[in-house]
Amino acid sequence: MKAAIIMGSKSDYAVVQKAGEVLEGFGVETETRIISAHRTPKAAAEFAEKAEENGIEVIIAAAGKAAHLAGVLAASTPLPVIGIPMKSSTLDGLDSLLSVVQMPKGIPVATVAIDGAENAALLAVQILSLKYPALRAAMKEYKANMEKEVIAIDEEFRNGK
Amino acid sequence: MKAAIIMGSKSDYAVVQKAGEVLEGFGVETETRIISAHRTPKAAAEFAEKAEENGIEVIIAAAGKAAHLAGVLAASTPLPVIGIPMKSSTLDGLDSLLSVVQMPKGIPVATVAIDGAENAALLAVQILSLKYPALRAAMKEYKANMEKEVIAIDEEFRNGK
Amino acid sequence: MKAAIIMGSKSDYAVVQKAGEVLEGFGVETETRIISAHRTPKAAAEFAEKAEENGIEVIIAAAGKAAHLAGVLAASTPLPVIGIPMKSSTLDGLDSLLSVVQMPKGIPVATVAIDGAENAALLAVQILSLKYPALRAAMKEYKANMEKEVIAIDEEFRNGK
Amino acid sequence: MKAAIIMGSKSDYAVVQKAGEVLEGFGVETETRIISAHRTPKAAAEFAEKAEENGIEVIIAAAGKAAHLAGVLAASTPLPVIGIPMKSSTLDGLDSLLSVVQMPKGIPVATVAIDGAENAALLAVQILSLKYPALRAAMKEYKANMEKEVIAIDEEFRNGK
Amino acid sequence: MKAAIIMGSKSDYAVVQKAGEVLEGFGVETETRIISAHRTPKAAAEFAEKAEENGIEVIIAAAGKAAHLAGVLAASTPLPVIGIPMKSSTLDGLDSLLSVVQMPKGIPVATVAIDGAENAALLAVQILSLKYPALRAAMKEYKANMEKEVIAIDEEFRNGK
Amino acid sequence: MKAAIIMGSKSDYAVVQKAGEVLEGFGVETETRIISAHRTPKAAAEFAEKAEENGIEVIIAAAGKAAHLAGVLAASTPLPVIGIPMKSSTLDGLDSLLSVVQMPKGIPVATVAIDGAENAALLAVQILSLKYPALRAAMKEYKANMEKEVIAIDEEFRNGK
Amino acid sequence: MKAAIIMGSKSDYAVVQKAGEVLEGFGVETETRIISAHRTPKAAAEFAEKAEENGIEVIIAAAGKAAHLAGVLAASTPLPVIGIPMKSSTLDGLDSLLSVVQMPKGIPVATVAIDGAENAALLAVQILSLKYPALRAAMKEYKANMEKEVIAIDEEFRNGK
Amino acid sequence: MKAAIIMGSKSDYAVVQKAGEVLEGFGVETETRIISAHRTPKAAAEFAEKAEENGIEVIIAAAGKAAHLAGVLAASTPLPVIGIPMKSSTLDGLDSLLSVVQMPKGIPVATVAIDGAENAALLAVQILSLKYPALRAAMKEYKANMEKEVIAIDEEFRNGK
Repeated sequence: MKAAIIMGSKSDYAVVQKAGEVLEGFGVETETRIISAHRTPKAAAEFAEKAEENGIEVIIAAAGKAAHLAGVLAASTPLPVIGIPMKSSTLDGLDSLLSVVQMPKGIPVATVAIDGAENAALLAVQILSLKYPALRAAMKEYKANMEKEVIAIDEEFRNGK
Repeated sequence: MKAAIIMGSKSDYAVVQKAGEVLEGFGVETETRIISAHRTPKAAAEFAEKAEENGIEVIIAAAGKAAHLAGVLAASTPLPVIGIPMKSSTLDGLDSLLSVVQMPKGIPVATVAIDGAENAALLAVQILSLKYPALRAAMKEYKANMEKEVIAIDEEFRNGK
Repeated sequence: MKAAIIMGSKSDYAVVQKAGEVLEGFGVETETRIISAHRTPKAAAEFAEKAEENGIEVIIAAAGKAAHLAGVLAASTPLPVIGIPMKSSTLDGLDSLLSVVQMPKGIPVATVAIDGAENAALLAVQILSLKYPALRAAMKEYKANMEKEVIAIDEEFRNGK
Repeated sequence: MKAAIIMGSKSDYAVVQKAGEVLEGFGVETETRIISAHRTPKAAAEFAEKAEENGIEVIIAAAGKAAHLAGVLAASTPLPVIGIPMKSSTLDGLDSLLSVVQMPKGIPVATVAIDGAENAALLAVQILSLKYPALRAAMKEYKANMEKEVIAIDEEFRNGK
Repeated sequence: MKAAIIMGSKSDYAVVQKAGEVLEGFGVETETRIISAHRTPKAAAEFAEKAEENGIEVIIAAAGKAAHLAGVLAASTPLPVIGIPMKSSTLDGLDSLLSVVQMPKGIPVATVAIDGAENAALLAVQILSLKYPALRAAMKEYKANMEKEVIAIDEEFRNGK
Repeated sequence: MKAAIIMGSKSDYAVVQKAGEVLEGFGVETETRIISAHRTPKAAAEFAEKAEENGIEVIIAAAGKAAHLAGVLAASTPLPVIGIPMKSSTLDGLDSLLSVVQMPKGIPVATVAIDGAENAALLAVQILSLKYPALRAAMKEYKANMEKEVIAIDEEFRNGK
Repeated sequence: MKAAIIMGSKSDYAVVQKAGEVLEGFGVETETRIISAHRTPKAAAEFAEKAEENGIEVIIAAAGKAAHLAGVLAASTPLPVIGIPMKSSTLDGLDSLLSVVQMPKGIPVATVAIDGAENAALLAVQILSLKYPALRAAMKEYKANMEKEVIAIDEEFRNGK
Repeated sequence: MKAAIIMGSKSDYAVVQKAGEVLEGFGVETETRIISAHRTPKAAAEFAEKAEENGIEVIIAAAGKAAHLAGVLAASTPLPVIGIPMKSSTLDGLDSLLSVVQMPKGIPVATVAIDGAENAALLAVQILSLKYPALRAAMKEYKANMEKEVIAIDEEFRNGK
């Protein structure tokens, strides 16, 4: 099982690496790349066209501002593409969000929250778990642990503050 | 292969039914329900908790305004949940979009465009295609046909206008 | 007289604790909890369903981003629920505000300003004062003191600057 | 038990009357008035100052654009004030929403959704039910009926579409 | 000739004092006050009702969030009221701007830019200059000097950078 | 006493004529013109430069979209300029509002609500009334009548609904 | 001299054809095409890569929602690309505008107003006029005529209303 | 070949100077000026009217808030005008963007991203390259280098992280 993580600029890595960490935690192999829809359009098309035959099963794409990367990849692959709108220096991520999520009819992008790298990875795991039952089990455990953690914090908080 | 389509109100059906039509076109079995995160919270929790054992593999959830349905379902299932933010009578869908997409860390919702029912279905097919190779093939054909159609319209347009 | 203060994450406590301080100033007993609509959905439902029989009379719920907590609690209790939209790292609280206030017909959330923890507490006191006349008197005094304070600052300002 | 419904302009009545209908359905006495924070400031102050002694226990205030009515009333009464931001001819209600909900520290307004007249009334009932146990019971029944209705629609829908 | 500068909170003074400085530069007498539409509603009404007879000719009002101050003063005086929407800790001043500028029919507020204290003062001078020809002359000189300054900066910039 | 009403396009007249009607009701002479900041820049500059010597005492300028008209006129006259942001076919007037109100330091525009032609006229009257006591008296009467009207509607409403 | 007009969907033609009419009015040859960045990514890349050698000198691209067309074309051509953000069924064109204009560093798109087809054409003419002096002259005449028209409407309006 | 870079205030220079650097990199002569649409309207008109005869072939104009500079220059020149909306202290550049891009019919401004000084310069080069073939070649090389750089970073990243 293998996911690709593509970011439009190396500066996105501080946020995007959390997606890689989550995926690794689930034992999902990742291929992380820097490809720009605008500055390396051929690399983007080539990556997307060959992603399936290269064994990639789900793609995570992160970009900011007029964030076309996820949509451009989705245009050239039958694989599910998850988009992370990156917050940039102006407009607080609203431009990125709308550029990623408002895809016209025919080419969806599975959009997560602005800067939502962990959630992009968890969504990738949920998607992969259709095919890999072990991931389904791991996801259930992840959710159960998350629940336990919050409950533990709650109890600690109520006892101590 | 089976997808659930859940909407928060019957009035959403005019838009949401397009998701059902697309899924049927791909031969995906659908279960369509009206469940409200706010008015039927137990039904929502019950549905989500049992979705996996009921054979559902991906969930599409459509709701408007403070649109919690997709998030509430995602909280109680390990399955991937696709959210459709519905345009309502005020704010042009912005409230729905932000309520669906801006999920906090731990519980992702795969969000598509406002009123993007067809794209929600196509995303469901892409997700299901990880497990069902026939769907992958069908999705490739779908994309190829879409491409041909636009090219045909372009040619017709250039010749005739 | 008893109010519950629920927050979606411990990180909300820096803001939310002001609500507790105000309530304590009015002599209202508070129960403060960390419960997440998404990560601990069962705890959220259970809390809301039992809140009335546990002697809680009004609930304050604080959450950020796709802030479903207040709405999810309101779905499962007949008690009035006050929602505090928390400012988070992106979109300056607009997502939280719309997710809390734009509740669909049937399940209201009494929404206060973004990060408006003090006002949530004051609203809780105003609500409790329907039943507890001493709180009504205290609220009148609170408002009178607030008025006096501003007038004193105004006078000091005019004399000195 | 008595609630006041105040609107800033007679043209708001088409929306606001739904609040009155809901309150009447719960047997809550209502006093409905047209008072403008800007065109009749003395009437607004006088109404708010005397509301408590006139037997009013909760106030619903509806206004649009730079919607100051709810805040202006809340300034002069210890009663809980519920604000309905009205959609007007421009900006789709965003101006009204922000003018009502973003109250500064000290004077809360319990804000419901844009044009959310029914929810304002339901919130008023929830508040009144602290004092009037019959209303609490009625609210539980209301919620139960709402749940049954949605379940019935869901079943009908699944059988028939 | 006399202008009043009213602010909703002492914390606004850092910005608002620039209005006072500009007015003093034009020789306009100012009365600067801290009056809150919400916390001191009677002081606000009283100030506005007596402003004309107290010799005030134009009022500048600065407030943030659900900024009702300018509108509340305008409701109770025939004098022109200039509103300064103050940027606050959330929403970047948009809430303040809409609360000040979107006044309903009948009661205008002359709104300037968010945090636009200098421009509020210049507008006050322009208004006062209808009655005081010396101010008209001073305003022309002010504009001429501003023009010269920019031209000087431009020249310096072109020569040196 | 004389006010100019300038609009950027003849299509604005349906809204803007209400300003003329209000001004005529107060006996203020008006000069109504169609001048575009962008299509007739020289006419705009010439009008503004000569406005004072032509006996104009206050200018109302209405424009939509990137609405520069009011700012451009204000740049070339010492007279107070009132801006009406016009709602156009997209963005619901937000673009017009921000283009009119967010003037940089040095050149204020007294901005009223989107499409707020009546309020622009009332503000002009308030400004003119600094010089013309009869207008001050008329404005007081106008406000008193407005108050009476609302009170009458309120009474009628309470008796009849 | 030759301009290309590309639209993402045939439904954009009602607006986009105005660009063609303006260009024809200036005697600029146009090639109008329907090419989708998402549904026909290869056609988009091919068009852009060959545009220069096909004699095209400036490209106008119109698309709505997550409007990537202009940016995708700009990625693969050294020609200037003008983007028209199209208003679609939700968000009033804001999504389109931000997706077109907020291009990251390296690949500009010359963006005009939402639905601004005429202005896109006029901008194309201004760009082409660097090379074709006759277009410069025609543009001056166009601007002069536009000025005359507005002046004529103004005069007619002042005489007649 | 010559481009003008005009900014509304010296404080814009930190951002705007990047445009100059890019243009110099391409060997384009630049004339950089500080001209304010509001504080030096005559200088603005004069500059625009004489720009063509002064040998300028494309104009870049940068301004913030109610950013009229680009539109005002475009009104008085047949040259293409590129607008840079500057982020200012409030509203995160949205006011500037809408004030620059939403130009009414007849007078286009070629708008780039908020603070997009480099892109403004690149767009200027693309426009100039219609007339100067050497610039076309340089632009192709620039794009090729940019592509190579991203590919190099990608490779380095894949090897090393």
